[in-house]
Amino acid sequence: MTLDIPAPYLLFLGDVTDPIDVKSAFGVRDWAPERVVGELALPAATVTLGLPAMAPAQAAAAGAKAILIGAVNMGGFIPRNWLPSLLAGLEAGLDIVSGMHRKLASVPELAEAAERLGRKLIDVRVPPADIAVGNGNPRTGKRLLTVGTDCAMGKKYTSLALARALHAQGVDATFRATGQTGIMISGSGLPMDSVVVDFASGAAERLSPDAAADHWDVIEGQGSLLHPGFAGVTLALLHGSQPDVMVLCHDPRRTVIRGLPDISIPPLNDVMALYLPLARLTNQTTRFAGVSLNTHGLSEIEAATALKTAEAETGLPAADPVRGGAAFDQLVEACVG
Amino acid sequence: MTLDIPAPYLLFLGDVTDPIDVKSAFGVRDWAPERVVGELALPAATVTLGLPAMAPAQAAAAGAKAILIGAVNMGGFIPRNWLPSLLAGLEAGLDIVSGMHRKLASVPELAEAAERLGRKLIDVRVPPADIAVGNGNPRTGKRLLTVGTDCAMGKKYTSLALARALHAQGVDATFRATGQTGIMISGSGLPMDSVVVDFASGAAERLSPDAAADHWDVIEGQGSLLHPGFAGVTLALLHGSQPDVMVLCHDPRRTVIRGLPDISIPPLNDVMALYLPLARLTNQTTRFAGVSLNTHGLSEIEAATALKTAEAETGLPAADPVRGGAAFDQLVEACVG
Repeated sequence: MTLDIPAPYLLFLGDVTDPIDVKSAFGVRDWAPERVVGELALPAATVTLGLPAMAPAQAAAAGAKAILIGAVNMGGFIPRNWLPSLLAGLEAGLDIVSGMHRKLASVPELAEAAERLGRKLIDVRVPPADIAVGNGNPRTGKRLLTVGTDCAMGKKYTSLALARALHAQGVDATFRATGQTGIMISGSGLPMDSVVVDFASGAAERLSPDAAADHWDVIEGQGSLLHPGFAGVTLALLHGSQPDVMVLCHDPRRTVIRGLPDISIPPLNDVMALYLPLARLTNQTTRFAGVSLNTHGLSEIEAATALKTAEAETGLPAADPVRGGAAFDQLVEACVG
Repeated sequence: MTLDIPAPYLLFLGDVTDPIDVKSAFGVRDWAPERVVGELALPAATVTLGLPAMAPAQAAAAGAKAILIGAVNMGGFIPRNWLPSLLAGLEAGLDIVSGMHRKLASVPELAEAAERLGRKLIDVRVPPADIAVGNGNPRTGKRLLTVGTDCAMGKKYTSLALARALHAQGVDATFRATGQTGIMISGSGLPMDSVVVDFASGAAERLSPDAAADHWDVIEGQGSLLHPGFAGVTLALLHGSQPDVMVLCHDPRRTVIRGLPDISIPPLNDVMALYLPLARLTNQTTRFAGVSLNTHGLSEIEAATALKTAEAETGLPAADPVRGGAAFDQLVEACVG
């Protein structure tokens, strides 16, 4: 059992004025339009997703099953002025889904209304309670894991794009979410960053269970072996995922770990040489299929040069999934070919 | 702030009949006799630590500050028939210290009595709430970390023995506990296995803070990079500890990971080659000083052969801290020399 979220959603934007604060909502809109019926913003909001504006009752009539808090708020709690909309959602028969730090049930009004109306309060950051310790036993089916030279450089995007491309080729593929936005997009998953460390690889094992021999799980990576704060979750996810194939995600403009200027990012081959022997513990035939470069902010020519450089360095296909094209097709082919 | 436990203790043994169920109590007796005033067992118990038997009031009169539950119980909860002794401890002015899974305050009688009497209920498995994400910034002072080819092969014992030996040489050294028995022995520490994975290396950073240039923290290792269930905690502890020196702990009779017969333990040099590049992320001059072999169950001659073999393989001193002797003196010297 992983988290499972009722859909489709009414996306609640609160009173946001900065698009970065509703990036989860943009992610859901872009990657899972079939899971969305509309958006609801407070009068002070200046950001829109361009979806139909709906009150909770309208959304419920249009088939919505949940109101999803797609905004973050400084401090991670639910502001008082969001409560009327959320309570109206419960009254209209919607569950509430949240990625906030503070749990939904810690707000007395929400807890009371959910109890009275028989509605669910779903915190996407809360992992299942009964996770076992990982054992490394081989599972059936195929697995792809995105890994990174750092955090926040496109592992989620790459995983989603690869899963979509495999689907388009008729491959039986499932995106496996490990973070809150990914869970909101796919409607299920496991928030790896919230698991107690002794159970982290067990959580990854549960996330990608036995499957048909030709089925691919495309697993969203987390952190980086090069990040002194997050390498533990990265390694637990690597061991628990037992990937057949890894794709290395990198931002060519990043030379040091974000926020940690004393930690340089070594050449891509050295990074792969750090991952491979560890990955072999649970899958001796694991391999890197290619490199996913985040070339956001680079010109067309600069991006092409960065991709060529990465290919020359590693001897593997390199692509930016946002730019797509033939390079990305080659990366997809290298993964499952 | 790490956990801090009031001492000395009255060691409570419950109604145990198997010494393995009170191994924490034996550990405290053996390594921290100055933290113990006596023992208390129920009539059905058949195990004794050989300490003076005391009722809680007697122990309090003898200077005890806490009653420490030194026994484990199937299921990790406190049996009803232990409650009268624990309540008597609270009434006598003692705090209660527990390493059980179930929290002390979840027992209504204990919560009520502790509240009424102003006593503390201390769960050794519960880490501090406000741990930060690790950043890898260098800290002052020296650090030694024990690492292992597997779990449960002598990392705690080795760390305690090294800290004691350094002390005996006049080195300013502190044993840093990362598991519950170690915390009970030293009276402080951080239960690494209970930390949420994103904060695990931050917990290790907090455990061994800035110190004088010639001070040594001797940090109790956890898990193994070779264990698919626990490598995440091992790596987080490695990064957060930023050790100057590592000691590799091994049991020469173990050829596979305990409970996971499909995972072989590679040669010691290969294991060190797995740890070293990862450890360099937060301490570029880190090194292995030697090997600590658990030769329990081997004859004197077999043990000597195993130590010679490990030395020949690695080119480093090898010793069994339980057997001590000149070999162990050399290992200590190699750590701080």
